[in-house]
Amino acid sequence: MTDQDPYLLTPGPLTTSTTVKQAMLRDWGSWDGNFNAMTADICQRLLAVAGGEDSHVCVPMQGSGTFAVEATLGTVIPPGSRTLVLMNGAYGQRIGKILTTLGRPFLAIDKGDYHPPRGDEVAAALTENPDIDQVVVVHCETSSGILNPIDEIAEVCRQAGKRLIIDSMSAFGALPVNVAELPCAALVSSANKCFEGVPGFGFAIIERDLLAASAGQCHSLSLDLYEQWQYLQKTGQWRYTPPTHVVAAFQQAMKEHQAEGGVAGRLARYTRNRDRLVAGMRELGFQTLLVDQWLSPIITTFLSPDSPAFEFGRFYDAIKARGFVIYPGKLTVADSFRIGCIGQLHDEQIDAVIAAIAEVCQELGLTLPVPAPAEAPDNLQSA
Amino acid sequence: MTDQDPYLLTPGPLTTSTTVKQAMLRDWGSWDGNFNAMTADICQRLLAVAGGEDSHVCVPMQGSGTFAVEATLGTVIPPGSRTLVLMNGAYGQRIGKILTTLGRPFLAIDKGDYHPPRGDEVAAALTENPDIDQVVVVHCETSSGILNPIDEIAEVCRQAGKRLIIDSMSAFGALPVNVAELPCAALVSSANKCFEGVPGFGFAIIERDLLAASAGQCHSLSLDLYEQWQYLQKTGQWRYTPPTHVVAAFQQAMKEHQAEGGVAGRLARYTRNRDRLVAGMRELGFQTLLVDQWLSPIITTFLSPDSPAFEFGRFYDAIKARGFVIYPGKLTVADSFRIGCIGQLHDEQIDAVIAAIAEVCQELGLTLPVPAPAEAPDNLQSA
Ligand SMILES: Cc1ncc(COP(=O)(O)O)c(C=O)c1O
Ligand SMILES: Cc1ncc(COP(=O)(O)O)c(C=O)c1O
Repeated sequence: MTDQDPYLLTPGPLTTSTTVKQAMLRDWGSWDGNFNAMTADICQRLLAVAGGEDSHVCVPMQGSGTFAVEATLGTVIPPGSRTLVLMNGAYGQRIGKILTTLGRPFLAIDKGDYHPPRGDEVAAALTENPDIDQVVVVHCETSSGILNPIDEIAEVCRQAGKRLIIDSMSAFGALPVNVAELPCAALVSSANKCFEGVPGFGFAIIERDLLAASAGQCHSLSLDLYEQWQYLQKTGQWRYTPPTHVVAAFQQAMKEHQAEGGVAGRLARYTRNRDRLVAGMRELGFQTLLVDQWLSPIITTFLSPDSPAFEFGRFYDAIKARGFVIYPGKLTVADSFRIGCIGQLHDEQIDAVIAAIAEVCQELGLTLPVPAPAEAPDNLQSA
Repeated sequence: MTDQDPYLLTPGPLTTSTTVKQAMLRDWGSWDGNFNAMTADICQRLLAVAGGEDSHVCVPMQGSGTFAVEATLGTVIPPGSRTLVLMNGAYGQRIGKILTTLGRPFLAIDKGDYHPPRGDEVAAALTENPDIDQVVVVHCETSSGILNPIDEIAEVCRQAGKRLIIDSMSAFGALPVNVAELPCAALVSSANKCFEGVPGFGFAIIERDLLAASAGQCHSLSLDLYEQWQYLQKTGQWRYTPPTHVVAAFQQAMKEHQAEGGVAGRLARYTRNRDRLVAGMRELGFQTLLVDQWLSPIITTFLSPDSPAFEFGRFYDAIKARGFVIYPGKLTVADSFRIGCIGQLHDEQIDAVIAAIAEVCQELGLTLPVPAPAEAPDNLQSA
């Protein structure tokens, strides 16, 4: 390992700024007015980024992003109400698992690992299944890095009069979204993704009227977003102990997000990171899993070198020894690994990770270029 | 406010050491070996403090302490199995609320705000209700500061062959407990109490055989301790993103806990804080809610001055202006406030808070001594 901690080229936890981490050097009373003001400030800022000031509320939830997704589904979906879940990777599947655990009925459209769910098939499913009340989709399906077409899905939902719930965990803060215009009934994300805070809580941006009608629906005491919202409104405090230091770090992260130009500024940097990364890796002989149209500026999946000498653990360790932490693949279709573009990463780090990977390929004797996979569907790079 | 942040004389979040906070100045990959080693280390240390190395496992859970309590009850109590809940304050009542939300049947013994549940009444309830499988009790009922007699309750459970589950949120780390000897099937606590970490996760120390038999019981995907345990065993990683910085701070806190002499060292300091605080406050004319026998070294409830001039908000603000955050009461029986003894508090801070309260009483024209409450049960100070 280099002297400096390794850079995290992962979908989060990320490399955060020094100033974000330094915001954790104070202790806050969770009952105290100063802390309550901080909570109100971050919720108000998040609502503004989402364009939901007039129609939505922002409710934070302790725990990881999955906790916030489960809290949202458990709170706003009435027991018995049927849901359409759009799946094309691990996070869409997790939504199905949550609904199964909660005993809430759902229908799934599962596109496998690398196909986006499209508007026309959602429309067809809604026509065939008029009892469906809401559709859930993942914004950036982080398992492959695919950017799902939420605009066309939202339009279909609007026309059919169905509520749309978006897991925008790894996209919100870098990809523009306006919950009022889409429209979107609930959007879920977390502190440690594109806002570049540290992990410890997530949040949901929910239509006020929907949340107000959600009393008593949640399967869990801790994860009840309605009760969290009521308590926050009444007292300014989180219902149970908040991760105070993480919240302080997040407020600082939100300020830095704004200073970078908000969503547009962050999207510009991440896009630049992605373009530079993909170009550099292709030059080395690597292939992206997806064609350019579906590549997100969040994380990119690369196919593994087709060498007997390739073993992800060794590859990972050798890159880490050079100061960069990459991420394993999460696909069934093809042997792959992922490199993230989010967090405190700039040209310098992108160039350096490409140089490190070049060295590692030599050191490990990996065969490049990476050949196209046997199977070659439309949106695979090899198509 | 003074230049230095105010000291937190609360039941947590607490004033933590500078070194604990500084441990958050690094970013950790949640998939990375270095972080996994940290997780393994804290679990192993917690298990050792609880005396559970041969019989129990330690499983962390993201979120606040309540999340860990709900996760434990939801995971290890089979649906349909009946529970006896011992209540004498807000946290015992919360256990009842969790079981109600989960639809798990329970019987409650509710002792009100200031009476401890005793072994003989637990024995009687278990005899009368042979279908009860487990008993849940709060160790230190933080709402009054009462220290419940868990030894005598554990002995009754052992004799009756019932499992005992302890919410030791505000006691574990400062009050000696040996889960194997008690015995105790599950003990729940969190990072930001007597171990003096920062908030963001809790943990449960659970009999290995009990947890191994708990697959598929949990009402929640996120809060499933069985699945968290399985994933940790298989991969060394938390199942969903952990609060990495909070975990790093906790490892540092555990080292400092050990350096202070472990549970014995911490108990000695907290007891000294409590004795010094109670003596000083009594000298000013304040009364504790409880007689000395039931006072915990964690937090003490004082009766409010019986003056029309007393208004908690003003009292709180005036004390905060002098550099100390105290805590409101949580009782129905009597107007009261609480002062905590845990966290980075030493003689100097205890003396200073007493001096500050003396000044504030003068400034606000509060009448002292505080008279005995009208009602005077056995274990009230006034008895
Ligand atoms: C799209 C998406 N949903 C949900 C999650 C789950 O987040 P967590 O690991 O914080 O529970 C992630 C994490 O990367 C994600 O990318
Ligand atoms: C005995 C006890 N149980 C449970 C809790 C709940 O903890 P949290 O606020 O972290 O959810 C507390 C918090 O003070 C407590 O003292």
